Amino acid sequence: MKKYKKLYRIAGLMLAGTLLLALVTTSTYAADSQKKTVDPLPSWNEGATKSALIDFVEAVTKKGSKDYVEPAARIATFDNDGTLWVEAPMYTQMLLAIDRVKALAPQHPEWKTTQPFKAVLEGDMETVGASGAKGVMEIVLATHSGMTAAEFEKTVTDWLATHKHPKFNRLYTECIYQPQLELLAYLRANGFKTFIVSGGGVAFMRPFTEKAYGIPPEQVVGSSVVTEFQIKEGKPELIRQPKMGFNNDKAGKPVGIYQHIGRRPILAFGNSDSDMQMIEYTMAGEGRRMGLFVHHTDAEREYAYDRKSHIGTLDKALDEAKKNGWIIVDMKKEWKKVFPDLK
Amino acid sequence: MKKYKKLYRIAGLMLAGTLLLALVTTSTYAADSQKKTVDPLPSWNEGATKSALIDFVEAVTKKGSKDYVEPAARIATFDNDGTLWVEAPMYTQMLLAIDRVKALAPQHPEWKTTQPFKAVLEGDMETVGASGAKGVMEIVLATHSGMTAAEFEKTVTDWLATHKHPKFNRLYTECIYQPQLELLAYLRANGFKTFIVSGGGVAFMRPFTEKAYGIPPEQVVGSSVVTEFQIKEGKPELIRQPKMGFNNDKAGKPVGIYQHIGRRPILAFGNSDSDMQMIEYTMAGEGRRMGLFVHHTDAEREYAYDRKSHIGTLDKALDEAKKNGWIIVDMKKEWKKVFPDLK
Repeated sequence: MKKYKKLYRIAGLMLAGTLLLALVTTSTYAADSQKKTVDPLPSWNEGATKSALIDFVEAVTKKGSKDYVEPAARIATFDNDGTLWVEAPMYTQMLLAIDRVKALAPQHPEWKTTQPFKAVLEGDMETVGASGAKGVMEIVLATHSGMTAAEFEKTVTDWLATHKHPKFNRLYTECIYQPQLELLAYLRANGFKTFIVSGGGVAFMRPFTEKAYGIPPEQVVGSSVVTEFQIKEGKPELIRQPKMGFNNDKAGKPVGIYQHIGRRPILAFGNSDSDMQMIEYTMAGEGRRMGLFVHHTDAEREYAYDRKSHIGTLDKALDEAKKNGWIIVDMKKEWKKVFPDLK
Repeated sequence: MKKYKKLYRIAGLMLAGTLLLALVTTSTYAADSQKKTVDPLPSWNEGATKSALIDFVEAVTKKGSKDYVEPAARIATFDNDGTLWVEAPMYTQMLLAIDRVKALAPQHPEWKTTQPFKAVLEGDMETVGASGAKGVMEIVLATHSGMTAAEFEKTVTDWLATHKHPKFNRLYTECIYQPQLELLAYLRANGFKTFIVSGGGVAFMRPFTEKAYGIPPEQVVGSSVVTEFQIKEGKPELIRQPKMGFNNDKAGKPVGIYQHIGRRPILAFGNSDSDMQMIEYTMAGEGRRMGLFVHHTDAEREYAYDRKSHIGTLDKALDEAKKNGWIIVDMKKEWKKVFPDLK
């Protein structure tokens, strides 16, 4: 009787082993076949750009390839406004600033008679626009400083959770480009570290980039105001000052990359002439590289603008792209879908 | 005959399955028992600090624990000089600067008669010291600017590969603390992201931190000179300017953490009063936190200095540690071993 029990146990163990083996074999096979058939960029139409992206990623990740790049050096940088999310009809950060001027107006009676604040309060956006970069900077500094880091973060988070884009009737953080989400994920799955390198405020972007794009705060490079550490009533605080710190735009982008990341990207993606220096810096490194610009050509699904736009201007880069091997991504033609579905 | 073949194949498959099962069971068991017995910090002597470190890591990583912290928020920051590597008898970066003054002297005949350069060239370190922070800054700017980013990186790499510490007769990048290497690895194995936050130059540290500490360039926060992007003869270049940019020391450390990392650390490790603000900022956050200082008490194996030192000064922090729950790590008592073995 005892002997039989032992035999039964051995048989049972062997059966379990066989099932396990079958399971392992099947799942390995499934993973293999999946690898070959799943499209990593389903929202990109078939064509030259999609092929170039996949070809690039395969070349730099394949061991033994002449273009192979060590995982640590696989740095990809993306502009934010107009490259990862909608920047029209106005930068989202500027919309927040305008709302903050209105909210803070009772504490600033002088704004009723001082430009550009007077124009903001009167909704006279033409005068605001005419105040130029200096006026915009005044509005940004007045609304982005004079509070702790934590207070500003809360202001941004609350605003983004409650304001929708007028054309798309969805939260601004939902006006993000589905093809770019797929590209970011595809790059990360292939060992890339993905960064945002934007002229926008770093403290404005960080509260939403992880949830929206899977990019953590420490991988966001942007403009900043001077910030001071103070101990107030025994509590250490970071106080945002009404003074511009680093301007991470145009020629500031490669500098921001140097100071923050400390390595040259091998892929960079922008959408306007303000991204040219980042792309130039990226392309000037050794080995295989890739530089791309989103071209906003889709008035129906998004917006159409380029050369003489008051939004983002894609002009010089459009002319020089071919000569420099930069890829211009025609949104209308190359993106099967613009925004992610909402749950 | 065919029937037998099939039976044999089934039996063979069952046998293979059994072996696989046995293998899986054994290795799972081995991994389990290893987990329980391997000391993650072998170069730390048993005692309050080692227990506190392990207790902290277990508390913040155990799901369901009241102290649990999401992996993304497990940020640990370490000072460099005196915390991760030797800073005595002088900061390594200063030694490089002094050597560079000597190397560049032929191109600067005026240095023969201008302080503090004259003193450097004459080896009169007392006069250099008497020139104070202003003199040191002049020496640093003169030797850390006026070249491209790539040129400066090469200068640092070449110098570090060829200069040895006079007391330890090993490369400066080998004068790193074995107990801290173990702590960094232990934190990373538990989902932490480890950063350097140093008053030293970010461009000076980045060429060696990955190899020495496993910390990639983008996780190094430090001081910087103003840098400009220029296109020279058609080639995009980053040119280091003779102008101080950000000073990532003392009250600059929490600001550097805010601008660069964008999240408050939950563990910070320093060794001097210059690290106090970083530790205060770290400890002031919500939830469980840990702040530590290396106390250089080991004149034999390393150096002994604290209150009135011309190296790193640990004075106020030493007095206030107990009140604030900061841990003072007595090098002589708590570190079983100071430096890693050389291959």
